[in-house]
Amino acid sequence: MNSFTEYLWFETPQRQALVNITDRLGDLVEKSGIQEGMCLVSAMHITAAIWVNDEESGLKKDLFKWLEELAPAKPDYLHHQTGEDNADAHLKRTLLHHQAILPITKGKLDVGPWEQVFYAEFDGQRRKRVVIKILGE
Amino acid sequence: MNSFTEYLWFETPQRQALVNITDRLGDLVEKSGIQEGMCLVSAMHITAAIWVNDEESGLKKDLFKWLEELAPAKPDYLHHQTGEDNADAHLKRTLLHHQAILPITKGKLDVGPWEQVFYAEFDGQRRKRVVIKILGE
Amino acid sequence: MNSFTEYLWFETPQRQALVNITDRLGDLVEKSGIQEGMCLVSAMHITAAIWVNDEESGLKKDLFKWLEELAPAKPDYLHHQTGEDNADAHLKRTLLHHQAILPITKGKLDVGPWEQVFYAEFDGQRRKRVVIKILGE
Repeated sequence: MNSFTEYLWFETPQRQALVNITDRLGDLVEKSGIQEGMCLVSAMHITAAIWVNDEESGLKKDLFKWLEELAPAKPDYLHHQTGEDNADAHLKRTLLHHQAILPITKGKLDVGPWEQVFYAEFDGQRRKRVVIKILGE
Repeated sequence: MNSFTEYLWFETPQRQALVNITDRLGDLVEKSGIQEGMCLVSAMHITAAIWVNDEESGLKKDLFKWLEELAPAKPDYLHHQTGEDNADAHLKRTLLHHQAILPITKGKLDVGPWEQVFYAEFDGQRRKRVVIKILGE
Repeated sequence: MNSFTEYLWFETPQRQALVNITDRLGDLVEKSGIQEGMCLVSAMHITAAIWVNDEESGLKKDLFKWLEELAPAKPDYLHHQTGEDNADAHLKRTLLHHQAILPITKGKLDVGPWEQVFYAEFDGQRRKRVVIKILGE
């Protein structure tokens, strides 16, 4: 068995953003040399997530609008008594889930024809990290 | 380390459906010969998901009703300006999450007594695929 | 490749609870001897989940309040015609997701500085189990 570990750093100019990282992940899989395995992609900061879905600008706007309806930014979270203002970002990470596992087959990401992998930021404008862990042979 | 890859195809007669695939996954684990490992089950189309929960008809209806409340089918998504009509299906996939990892112990799926694995379709009536990737020894 | 399997049991005095299991998972990783790998943590009962987020009391209360808004406890679920009263707990498990994968690097859980792993109980007061499966080398 072989393993490969890498970290990607993000600092989005906006508070909320979707960054398509599919190609960067494909490059890391190639760099790992692993032919058959699994690639874990996990947001290490608790106000960010990983989303595997469509590279379509309308849908990406729909997603943010929908997240705002289900987990709105608003002042009255108890978490904000600590001085933070990002409770909604913790909940948005929860809705999207903070990680995904991508299968690797014949040395490539084995994802569907429209599956794109996004780093989803809900409290940006500072440096944050994603861990990539590949296991296989 | 050994690996095993298989694809399951679905074409549900309804737009929305839950298909219990637990037994088929158990058969694939047996076919793989892997005794200790992990089995990734991931929906490759971005309007379908994987749900690990209860084989109970009332709860399955409750689930669809609840998803419709949280991520309703409605005309006014921006995604629909592309000609699509399935933005709600992308969001429903997001709520359920599109994948699960099942541990394998002593050659069998190591799931709880009521855990059943479902392929969850939100935009069916066409052929769609799920990837199964097993790693272990 | 090596593998390691363990089960954690929970019986929370309250119906709903968050139990921080990060240190226990760290101990299991050490016990496994695995230096590079992945640690799957999966709730085996279908009214419990795993949440990777913040050890902050206000946010934990915000989480429960928010879950109650999105997936309320109420009598009129069809699932309750079976005699059960916990349909909301199945839906809350679905929102949080029932599992997480933690990368292991240099023999330790490779999680972010604020990432804490919680067992999330939504129908407690009885014995329930979580499976830990570690693969690596």
